[in-house]
Order: sequence, then structure tokens, then C-alpha cells
Amino acid sequence: MTTLYPPLPETKAPPSGIIIERVQPEIDGGRYPIKRVMGDVLQVSADIFKDSHDKIAAVLQYRRRSDPDWQEAEMHLVENDRWTGQFLLPDNTRYVYTIAAFPDRWATWSDEVGKKHTAGQDVALELVEGRLILEEALDRAVSADREVLEAGIAIAAGTASQAAKVQYLLGDEVALAMQRARSRAGEAHYATELEVVVDRPAARFAAWYEFFPRSAGTDPTRSATFAEAARRLPAIAAMGFDVAYLTPIHPIGTAFRKGKNNTLNLEPDDPGVPYAIGSEDGGHDAIEPGLGTLEDFQRFVATAASLGMEVALDVALQASPDHPWAKEHPEWFSVRPDGTIRYAENPPKKYQDIYPINFDTPAWRELWQELRRILVFWVEQGVKTFRVDNPHTKSMAFWEWVIASVQAEHPDVIFLSEAFTRPKVMKLLAKAGFTQSYTYFTWRNFKRELEEYFIELTQSEMKEYYRGNLFPNTHDILPFILQEGGRPAFKMRFALAATLSSVYGIYSSYELCENTPVPGREEYLNSEKYEYKVWDWDRPGNIIPYITQVNAMRREHPALQFYDNLHFYPSDDEHITCYGKATEDGSDRVVMVVNLDPFDTHETWLHLPVDEWGFPAGQPFQVEDLLTGEIHLWHEEQHMRLDPQDEPARFYAVRPITRVSYVEGCG
Amino acid sequence: MTTLYPPLPETKAPPSGIIIERVQPEIDGGRYPIKRVMGDVLQVSADIFKDSHDKIAAVLQYRRRSDPDWQEAEMHLVENDRWTGQFLLPDNTRYVYTIAAFPDRWATWSDEVGKKHTAGQDVALELVEGRLILEEALDRAVSADREVLEAGIAIAAGTASQAAKVQYLLGDEVALAMQRARSRAGEAHYATELEVVVDRPAARFAAWYEFFPRSAGTDPTRSATFAEAARRLPAIAAMGFDVAYLTPIHPIGTAFRKGKNNTLNLEPDDPGVPYAIGSEDGGHDAIEPGLGTLEDFQRFVATAASLGMEVALDVALQASPDHPWAKEHPEWFSVRPDGTIRYAENPPKKYQDIYPINFDTPAWRELWQELRRILVFWVEQGVKTFRVDNPHTKSMAFWEWVIASVQAEHPDVIFLSEAFTRPKVMKLLAKAGFTQSYTYFTWRNFKRELEEYFIELTQSEMKEYYRGNLFPNTHDILPFILQEGGRPAFKMRFALAATLSSVYGIYSSYELCENTPVPGREEYLNSEKYEYKVWDWDRPGNIIPYITQVNAMRREHPALQFYDNLHFYPSDDEHITCYGKATEDGSDRVVMVVNLDPFDTHETWLHLPVDEWGFPAGQPFQVEDLLTGEIHLWHEEQHMRLDPQDEPARFYAVRPITRVSYVEGCG
Repeated sequence: MTTLYPPLPETKAPPSGIIIERVQPEIDGGRYPIKRVMGDVLQVSADIFKDSHDKIAAVLQYRRRSDPDWQEAEMHLVENDRWTGQFLLPDNTRYVYTIAAFPDRWATWSDEVGKKHTAGQDVALELVEGRLILEEALDRAVSADREVLEAGIAIAAGTASQAAKVQYLLGDEVALAMQRARSRAGEAHYATELEVVVDRPAARFAAWYEFFPRSAGTDPTRSATFAEAARRLPAIAAMGFDVAYLTPIHPIGTAFRKGKNNTLNLEPDDPGVPYAIGSEDGGHDAIEPGLGTLEDFQRFVATAASLGMEVALDVALQASPDHPWAKEHPEWFSVRPDGTIRYAENPPKKYQDIYPINFDTPAWRELWQELRRILVFWVEQGVKTFRVDNPHTKSMAFWEWVIASVQAEHPDVIFLSEAFTRPKVMKLLAKAGFTQSYTYFTWRNFKRELEEYFIELTQSEMKEYYRGNLFPNTHDILPFILQEGGRPAFKMRFALAATLSSVYGIYSSYELCENTPVPGREEYLNSEKYEYKVWDWDRPGNIIPYITQVNAMRREHPALQFYDNLHFYPSDDEHITCYGKATEDGSDRVVMVVNLDPFDTHETWLHLPVDEWGFPAGQPFQVEDLLTGEIHLWHEEQHMRLDPQDEPARFYAVRPITRVSYVEGCG
Repeated sequence: MTTLYPPLPETKAPPSGIIIERVQPEIDGGRYPIKRVMGDVLQVSADIFKDSHDKIAAVLQYRRRSDPDWQEAEMHLVENDRWTGQFLLPDNTRYVYTIAAFPDRWATWSDEVGKKHTAGQDVALELVEGRLILEEALDRAVSADREVLEAGIAIAAGTASQAAKVQYLLGDEVALAMQRARSRAGEAHYATELEVVVDRPAARFAAWYEFFPRSAGTDPTRSATFAEAARRLPAIAAMGFDVAYLTPIHPIGTAFRKGKNNTLNLEPDDPGVPYAIGSEDGGHDAIEPGLGTLEDFQRFVATAASLGMEVALDVALQASPDHPWAKEHPEWFSVRPDGTIRYAENPPKKYQDIYPINFDTPAWRELWQELRRILVFWVEQGVKTFRVDNPHTKSMAFWEWVIASVQAEHPDVIFLSEAFTRPKVMKLLAKAGFTQSYTYFTWRNFKRELEEYFIELTQSEMKEYYRGNLFPNTHDILPFILQEGGRPAFKMRFALAATLSSVYGIYSSYELCENTPVPGREEYLNSEKYEYKVWDWDRPGNIIPYITQVNAMRREHPALQFYDNLHFYPSDDEHITCYGKATEDGSDRVVMVVNLDPFDTHETWLHLPVDEWGFPAGQPFQVEDLLTGEIHLWHEEQHMRLDPQDEPARFYAVRPITRVSYVEGCG
């Protein structure tokens, strides 16, 4: 029963009249953490105000989540009761932050006395009050501050003129000493401790390359081994990729194994789908024998590391009917009335080769611990990045727990959420802890839909917790734009992925512009999912040099290494999008112009915000074409023509024109 | 110390995969209640979804705050995981509401079986599963539902064809019976109970008339009595006002009493400012002797009631130096180092005749209780509405407590916040409990600023908790627009106040277009605050008939009695604003067109959303001029000319044209 008569508050002192609200960043009232990267400075703002006309002060309080003690940073009033403060996030760990505010008696007194003295009023009594405030603060003052306050007390009590007393007491020296020695009486606290996950830099800036290791060899009749796949790594590194992401490497089941092109007509040599995990050779902590041994895998990881790359694994939490779990832990699956384990379905589609895990099982504790054990097992093999398959069909509470739990011991582990589902579910996975997320980029082809979506991703609240890892293709998705648009589309979509976000990836064969579909579907014909493949990596028409050049550009230009610094600029043509990124200090600035139509040439006027960039008004500025190295002079209103057969996208480093003083001679 | 290793949840069952978030309406995470009026239907919406592909159901739970048991209303999916539900608020009390959601096993099963059966797949095993779900639900089913489920069980187990079984089990009859008998296993609850304050109708719809009772007589040398002031009430009622709001009626202090026009040159007969409350005749629970006795006041209240009006009192929580509190409770004030009580100041201005209360006093509990006692004292004299003077200079926590506490016993009491201060402080007072609030309307004169402000007031989150009571003037404020714009401005600003909001007020002499200022200031010359006044209520040029007509229109048109149903329509001229209000069913619709320039005639084209109104496209519709009674035919694009000397504002009842079928004859 709630009481009908609100009791008086139980505190001894009356409730603080200070309000702290609308803190930003804050996700869902603090229910979920925000995300940042090591070295970032976290800006926090809030509405902070007090009833009455008293002046207040506010501090941002923060600590590593594992530390008991708060540190503090002063907050400052911006305008309209909005305050802001900031602190550095040096380490790869979780921090918490909150806000405290309290009446600033000295500021209130100073404001009052200043106004009265200016109006020629007698302030004798106010000077007594001021002295009392200084005396109360004296014990908290240290070293030089103590002398400043003692001098103030002596002057206030002395025989100097009121003007002289006011001049000293309202001076900056006393104000600063009092800020350090001030009373915290009447302090109010924001009710919530907010969390920020601070990731390593690769969480925000990385280029991913996905491939099937079994298809990285030269013999189409058998699986390539890790040793053979490792020979692909130098080429991948040379293109400028940071992450070599492997589809599942575990033993593949034989029960209901799928044949080529997802058929049921299995031929004896068909290798099966790597996502049908588990056989008599083991489950999620085992290696498919065709690829080699755990030691082979460790050598593969070491080779990648020697090339400056890391290896990401695919985490598909499901089992083939041959998985050891199916025998040892049938309670982790759904059992039907006839005693069979329920296989995966998306009616009317049936996936008899895959058993989904039942996260509602009464044995959920053992299940969760086992899944965590598997993740930590691979972390211990040197894998610090996981791409998680279909996380939205698993338990959201599990992800929140397991990611926090793994990162508590291994804060450098990165989780990418492979969910293509309803927008709110995709957002929730990111809030629950996924470091990065797949996006709808894959299907955002036209100007308005593309710009709207990227404004949401990078300028709305989403930027605080959702890092879009852009894939123009995946092993499951060959979008129609690539099927129909051919090589110009492959270049155009690559340019977008690599510059709209700081983190992106491609699925191998993209560099070859491979686009033969299952007719009428967004799927690859003769997909590697169902068969061994051998690729000619020098195939004519490949865009390997282009990819290499764009990745090099990303590494050279820090502006391209941030996520939420994306801004679109008006372009008159409906096919040409224009956008830019810059470092916070403006020292690096890059502008992209992309023709989204892979078929036809378009031209447009661009309208560039040179004012915002701080360039001199009415003057040209310099741009460097990052593909050709050519220098051009541009104006605020700039004409542009893009032929997709030539270059569908242009990348420009932008800088104010350099003026040479001929008085001093020119070099 | 927080743990670095998140422990597994402690529940026996695995955590529910159901998410309930972004509930609306909800103010600051449920920290503050929303507001509604008796008889309203509260619409609640939320994002509700589940990991996996299970179907879910959701219910809105609600109860009077004083009731222990929840009632439930079914919620329905709108789109994109957004659900909505509603419930009626019949009573003048506080309600709480929240949301529960749970897996809907039968809906999940039905969806799966429907798809498989349609695809021609065998569903024998699914039919067994369906029977098990029905059997589990059977014990919860009552009367006819039980028979429906028993029939379903028999059919599922029987020898009918799969098609026949599917047809029966997927039918509406079983679906409805299962909705009533469904399992609530796996139920998730929204973490917060949200509150709604349900006020009596006058909280949203009322016209206020403010006056100084001491100036309501015929003798300028003395205070009018309540008996004399009561003779003004029929005229006020005849103009159509609902609330007679009196400036403070308590004894006025003599110490530092202010003379005419706020001077210090006091003459012996100067009556003092009614806001300097308290003398040897008593304090906030006493009556100024010049006005009469408590019995006289009670008779005044009764006279108002007999005319269909209520009396509102001014609550100014401050004391004259002669207030009994100054002697009996000096601890409720701030005492300075010289032993004097601190008087009110707004440096360099000094108000020696007023002591502000110190809400930070250690004796705050006794103080709060005494202030509450005073409010309840006046409630017991029949006063159900308080206009609170300068609430922002008092304790916010006090207001939150005292309003809830008074309304717990007297839910029909209305509090109006007279705060003209920073926007966030004004909003917080409304969140903390004030039923209505003053607004910046008084200074929003031009089209863009006016429309922007009213869109914020009535279409943003503010509509949930902030009811703007619009005053074009107050005893403290004679805005420049009225000083300069004269009679046309008085009509124009009145028209806006009476139709932009459902609740508004004027300060007396407005009907006389009194606008003599203290030169250069927004204050009345020879203000009633400092002297007795006698008014000629028949003064030439008065707008009493206009006010009477507009108030009658407000009572006749329910569209004008709602607050958040305001919509602006495009008008080409920068001086002419056009807006409309309608009842939810569209049966009453009123459109206003106002020339905001009191000096010159302007003309414009209006662009009216006849589609949204559901009127036939391309056809004229009928409008009735509510000032003249004339009928016109209008089109979607309508021309309009407004001469402020004639009528600065037009009010139209809008309806589709009536078609008469001549076949049946016309009457």
C-alpha cells in the first residue's frame, strides 16, 4: 500500500534545492553504458540549477569502475542552466561518471556585494558576512590559499575603505582560493552512476577482410589448410586490412549436410556448411580437421600478427545434430513431444542440419558458463575479436552478461553483432554490449535514404553506443546494386563503406568484383558456404589497387579514423552525395563526392560550409585529389562531374590556401 | 566496491528476453507525474519486443494510487515494435500505470502452424504440441472458453484431417479463448510505476479574472469591503469568468510600508502593498480588517459560488516585519550578523517591507507544516484554487511535498505557479506539481515567436505536465504591446489568450483597456498595488461585450476546452497567424485568424488542411463567423483581410457543407 499522505523527507537537513537532470551522454536513464575509445576525452553536460537566486558550482565525478574513489573535474555553465565538463579516458576498461553540485556561498556573496557597491550602497554588514564565509573556509585552505584567505579576513576586519575591501575580496585571487577551499554543504548528487565502456582503438578504426580459410588454397577438391590460408595473409595485409575474419573453423556435422547451392543432393565430397558446427571431431572449441590442428591455428594467428593484423572468429551459437552437446546436453535444446530435438526453422523453411540452443532451458546457468568458457578458450589462443552470428535469436540477457564478463578479464575483446533484423532489436544488442554492429548500409543505395540513415547512425543518440561496421557484401548477401552495377558499383560501395564509417569490412571476392547471383536472389551462385573454391586473385578487372589506395588514405588521414564526425553537404544532383570528416581541431579535413548511380555520369553543384571550416570568406581554397595527387582550387560553390566508369567517388584533402609573403621571398 | 566479474542473475528462471522501453507518456524516467483531467482516456505506448522470434502479448496495468490491485487493458502492436493501450481516468485522484508483457505461446504456435500448413507441410507433431498448450491452459479457462478449449483438445487428438484440425485450432474462437486463458509464464515488467495526477475539469478549462478587492468599491479614500467587492461579482460572472482571483487579503504590515507608485514618501492614508503580509492583526490565516472578517470572506465565497464562480487566493509566502512569525519564529528567516532579519533584495533593489522565508532553516519541518496548515485553512473556507506568488524563490522540494500532501486530502485543489523566470525552472515547478503555470505568452507578440512557443507548449513533452494559463496582463505587467497598441491590441491579445489555451486570465481594468504606464516601464502608473482605486466600469471604449462574446464562444465550443489540440496553419502574411482546435472526433472545429499587428490592416492567403479534416477534396466548406453569425463558403486556399480597428481576430466554426437530397425534398 502506498501512503496517501506523503510524509516529510526523513533527512535532517532540508532537501537540497539543486536539480541535476538531462545528463548527456546517458542511454535509457543509465540502464546501458555508452562507448568510447582509449584516449578520448568524455564531454558530459547537464541541466543544473537551484531554486532561489543562489549561485552554484558543479563537478563531474568519475572513476575506473574498479576504483573506489572518485576523481573530480570542474563543470562550467554554458547557458540557460546547461553545464558542461570533461575528463580523459586513458585506459581500456570501464569507467563510471556522475555529477555533484552545491551552493557556492562565496560566488553568491560576491555577486551581491558587487552589485550593491557599484550602486553606491553601504556594504558594511555584507563585509562582515563575507569575513565569516572566509573564516569558515580557512581550515580547508592549504598553502598559499590559506595566506590569501587570511589576508582577506584581515582586510575585511581592518580599517581600509569599503572600496579597498571590496576590491580585494572580489579579486580573482580570493575567488580562486575560495574555489579550492569552498564548502560542499548542501551538495546534491545525480541519482545515477553512468557507465562508459572504453575500448581499444580497433573498436572504432579498422578494416575487416572476411574469408573462408578452406577456400584460400589451390586445390578445389579439398579444404585448404591453415598453413595454406596463411599464405593469403600477406596479400590481405598489403591491401591495408587490419582484421582477418574467418568463417567458422570448427568440425562440420554430417547429419542432414547441405550440398552445393544449399541443395539436399549431397555428393560424397561436399564439405558442408561451416555454420553446422560439431561432429565426432568436437564442437565449438575444436578445429575442423581439414584445416589442421589447434597448433596450426596458433601459427596462423602468429603469421597474421607478424603482418600487423589480428584474426577474428565467427561465433555461431548453434549445433549440428552431430555436436557433442546434442548427446551430452540435450537439455540445452528444445525437445519435442516425440523426443526429437527441435531443429532450426523459419517456416516454411527447415534447417535440419542445425539445432538452435534453447536459452530458456532450466539448465541455463551451466549453458551460459559453457558458452563463456568457449569464448575465453579462443581469447587464450590469441583471438581478440568475435563476429557473432545472428545474436538476435539468442538471449539478450546472455549477451549483456557474457560480454561484460569476458571484458572484465579481457577488456581488449571486441564483439561485432551480425544482426539484420528490426531496428530496435539491432539497437538493443548494441546497448547490451556489442562493440560494433552490422547495419542497413548494405541496402541503402540512394541519396536520401543513405544520408538519413547515416545522420541517424552518427549524429543521433545512436552514436553513443552503436558503431556501425559497414559491409557492402557478406557471404550471405550479394546486394542487387553489386549484381547490376558491376565494377563501378563495387568501387562506389567500397568508397562509401570505407569513408562513411571508420570501421568497415568486405567479404573476399569483393576485390574481384565477383557478382554472379542465384538468379533473382541476393545470394552468391556456387557459394563458398557449400563447397570448396579456388580463386584467381589476379583476375582481370579486380579492384585490388583501388582498395589498397583507399585503405592507405584511411591510415594517412586521422579525419577518417573517427566515427561521429560525419557531415553531409548539399549537392544539387539527386545522384551525387557529398560529405566530409575532420579531426576536432580541423587540422585534417577530407571531403568525399560520390556518384551513387553506377550506370550514368552526373554533374552537380556542391555547396560547401567554408564558414564552419574557418576558411576566409569569398576566397578559393585548396583541395588535393587523394586518388591522383592533383591539386585544385575550389570555391564554396563548386561544380563537379563524376563518370562511374572513370571514378565513381572522389576523395579530397581540403585546406585553406597557403599565402606566401613575397616580402620575405618565396621558396 | 563493484565487482569486476558480473555474477550470473540470481533468478531461478533465465532472465526474460522481453524488453519494455521508451514508455510514453513518461516524464524524466517517471520521476514526475503527468497530468490529465477527469474523464480523459490515457493513451500509453511503448517499445515492446523479445529476443528470438516468439510472439508476445502486452497489457497496460493501472490502478488508483490508493488501490492495492492492478486493473489491466490489452495493448496492441501498432508497427515497428511499438505497442499502445489505453484506460479511462474517471476520478479526481492520482493513478499509477505500468506495463507487463509475456510470451504468447499460442500465437507463436498458430503463426508457425499456419505457415507450414499453407506450404503443404505435415504438421502432425505440431498438432500434438498445440494440444499440449491447450491442456496447460485449460485450468485457467472459465465457462464457455473452457468448452472451446476442450473441443480443441478433442479435435487435435481425434481422427479429423489435418486441414480440419488446423482450421478449428487457428480459428478466432480458440484465439479469443486462449487470450483469456493464456499463461503468464515468462512475464516481464516495466521497472517503473508511472503516475498521473487527474485533476478536476477547471484545471484545464477556466477563465480567470484577477482583482484587488479593496479597489472594488466606490470610495477612493478607504478599502472596499468584501460586501462591496461581492457587488462586482455579478458583472464578472456576466462576462463569462469562472474564477475570481483576489490579490492577498491578509493584514498588511506598516514597517517600511511603500507609498503610491512604490515610493518611500508614505502618506498617512496609504494602504500599503497587499504582498507585505502580516501585522498585529495577524498573518497568512487572517483577514485585512479593512476588507472585513472571516465571515465576510465566507459570504463573498458563497456569493461567487451562487454565480457559478469560484474564488482563488494569492499565496505569497513572505512576511512583513510586523508579521507574527517575525517575533514568534525568527528561526524561519535569515538572521544577519547584526541580529536583524534579512529583508528581500534583488541588488541593488531593496524591499525592506518584506522578509523572505528561509527554506534552508534547521526548523524546516515546523515551517513546512505551518505553511501546509495555512493552505488547508483556506481550503476549509471554500477556496479550492491558489495562485502562488514567485514559487521559484522558494524550495522546490517543499512545493512537491505540499501540493501532493494537500491534494491527498483535497484532490480538487488547483495550484497556479506565478513564475516568470528561466525556462527550466518554470518547467520544474510544473513537474513538481503545479496544476497550471504562467507563461512567456505575455511577451510573445510576433508570429514566429508566438507559433514556436505554442508548438512547444502544446505539442512537445511539455503538454504532459505544463498547462499554460495565459495572462495578457497582470497587476505587475502592462506589456508594451498593450501600451502602444491600445484597444485593438487589447482585443487581439485577449483573443489569443482565450483561444490559444483553454485556460487564461486577465487582470481587472483590462476590459477598460487601461494602459497608462510608468513611462518606459511595463508597469501601471498609479498601480492598485500601492493605493485604493475606484473604477468606472462603463468607461467608453471598454471591451466588455467583446470579452463576454468570446467567453460565451469558449463555453459553446468544446474544441476550445482542450489544451493540446492546437494546430497552426500556414498563412502567407507575416502578421497574420491562423490556428485551429477540434474535438478528438472532429464534431466541433474552430479556426482562428488573428492580425498580430495592432496598427495596420493586413491580408493573406490561408492554406487549410481540409484533407486532415476529412472534408471532400476540391469542394468548398462552410464557416460561421462566431462574432457576427454570418455564414461563408471557404476553400482550402482562402483569402482573408483583417483591419485591427474593426476586428483584429476572427473566429470561425468550420464544418463540411451540408448536402440536401432534393429527391427526399428539402425542409
